[in-house]
Amino acid sequence: MGYCSGKTFRYDKASIEVYAAVVGKIESEGPYGNEFDEVIDDNKGGTDTWEQAEGLFQKKAVKHVLDKSGLAPENIDLLFAGDLLNQCVGSSYGLKDYYIPFLGIYGACSTFAEGLLLAGAMVNAGYADTAIAVTSSHFSSAERQFRFPLNYGGIRTPTSQWTATASGAALVTQSGKPPFIRAATAGKIEDMGITDVNNMGAAMAGAAYDTLSRHFTHLGSRPEDYDLIITGDLGLVGSELLCDLFMRDGIAIKERHKDCGLMLFDRSTQDVHAGGSGCGCGASMMCGHFLKRIERGELKRVLFCATGALMSTTMIQQGGSIPGVAHAVEITSY
Amino acid sequence: MGYCSGKTFRYDKASIEVYAAVVGKIESEGPYGNEFDEVIDDNKGGTDTWEQAEGLFQKKAVKHVLDKSGLAPENIDLLFAGDLLNQCVGSSYGLKDYYIPFLGIYGACSTFAEGLLLAGAMVNAGYADTAIAVTSSHFSSAERQFRFPLNYGGIRTPTSQWTATASGAALVTQSGKPPFIRAATAGKIEDMGITDVNNMGAAMAGAAYDTLSRHFTHLGSRPEDYDLIITGDLGLVGSELLCDLFMRDGIAIKERHKDCGLMLFDRSTQDVHAGGSGCGCGASMMCGHFLKRIERGELKRVLFCATGALMSTTMIQQGGSIPGVAHAVEITSY
Repeated sequence: MGYCSGKTFRYDKASIEVYAAVVGKIESEGPYGNEFDEVIDDNKGGTDTWEQAEGLFQKKAVKHVLDKSGLAPENIDLLFAGDLLNQCVGSSYGLKDYYIPFLGIYGACSTFAEGLLLAGAMVNAGYADTAIAVTSSHFSSAERQFRFPLNYGGIRTPTSQWTATASGAALVTQSGKPPFIRAATAGKIEDMGITDVNNMGAAMAGAAYDTLSRHFTHLGSRPEDYDLIITGDLGLVGSELLCDLFMRDGIAIKERHKDCGLMLFDRSTQDVHAGGSGCGCGASMMCGHFLKRIERGELKRVLFCATGALMSTTMIQQGGSIPGVAHAVEITSY
Repeated sequence: MGYCSGKTFRYDKASIEVYAAVVGKIESEGPYGNEFDEVIDDNKGGTDTWEQAEGLFQKKAVKHVLDKSGLAPENIDLLFAGDLLNQCVGSSYGLKDYYIPFLGIYGACSTFAEGLLLAGAMVNAGYADTAIAVTSSHFSSAERQFRFPLNYGGIRTPTSQWTATASGAALVTQSGKPPFIRAATAGKIEDMGITDVNNMGAAMAGAAYDTLSRHFTHLGSRPEDYDLIITGDLGLVGSELLCDLFMRDGIAIKERHKDCGLMLFDRSTQDVHAGGSGCGCGASMMCGHFLKRIERGELKRVLFCATGALMSTTMIQQGGSIPGVAHAVEITSY
């Protein structure tokens, strides 16, 4: 794993002007349940299917962002969107009625960071005045697509993670107000040889280590320069692995490391095993909780590193391993 | 369908320095068979599965681009990649060994244009010195994923298209040499209510009409200002629809319109029904044929509009229609 190749992008004009999160019932019962903009109790959200519901979560998250900003869909120059469903249909079906220029992105659970990286770049460079990044995940649509039919009632393994039913959306502009996107590092694909779809944290930890290491090196920063280093959804197993990987280099990050997958749910009372996961997990924790704290100046410099397991059932059935990727976005109050 | 909302991005420094296409056997027997950089006769390419083979096509297309440019993988700042497979595994598994910063994109068959748009923007803005856009498709992996098992031997309908087994890759830099990326318009999602997965051309034609119309309006250009207007893979049905949609506005584009799906194969001798399709279709025709002609100055100003059908089997089985999207990239010799 090399330190110095690749680049870290710098931003001097990109603000996250507004942001919003929409979550499901179980997520609303977690420790941060009061911080989200909307809770949809019914996991079909009044639609006919889980997949349509997932689209609805994205649609509503974007609606909240539009409402907060006072902008209409025709005022938005670009929409970066993605999700875990085959062909990213949560995004395309959920957002089609807005009729906003649409660039689909895919990085599994790293997608929200990819969206912030690209929306930030397009706004910072002046290509777009307004760009939204939005992602989602849905427990039921993900479980039946990636693992087993829900009514099969399979026992979940201890390392398995619970896909969050949630969406987060952020509007990037040159508003000049915090939170600011200051830097971002695009991840390389790391394959640690993990083949267990119920151990995604382990599959993604190496990618997070590589991206964070390169980010520090390129900027000449150290973990202690950040108030928090927030990973998307490494969960319990992946988080420990990440801290261990840094300890090999003599770098202690545990004290300032937080994982959205370990925060969204209360693991002592909610049966989510190794924690939450999904494109909506990091997105909702960032847009529901962390961005507010950065905006208020409680957190001054934060590094958000969302990780993705780039697996498909087809490749797993063919005996393939699970490549991971992680993108890091540095967000500041100043 | 509005003309004037959204933006068309302008570029003044982005060159397509080198490009390459790798195709399968049937594609090599088509009218442009001699123009591709490599032909892989075996549709598994020596791997165990069609999905692994699709990854190999991307890997080889990128290899040709690296070889032509004299650059090593560590000299590439960004890789934009995508394909039609669930979770875009053609890209992630195919490209993981390069260890290049990787941003996954998804726009179905419009993905190559999305890649050029983003690679162009990131290079033009100075975020990246070198960015590669690469996409692929594979007849056998697509057919079994989207339609029927191949050995079921189903009869194909006349409107159906033949997914190209192909990959195209382009390296964008500030080389100062043609072909130049001059402008690009990101597409909005258009849903024409088509529900037939064997009639994708019709599902995509409205999106192409909208994106092209906005591109012309934003730049103050007219179809006759272009040597060619090249669509990705509308095929026979979609191409006629697109020309008809413009004729309603009194604009004749038929004379200068070409469709990669109608060019890659010889429909009179090859049994591909309404023409070729897939992320690899437009990518291989652009990287095998058109970019050369622009580089030589035979074509001076070309508008490449790749179209995508954003469907998934899940949504189709739930009775959903097929939303389309199209991204336009203007490429010039001057």
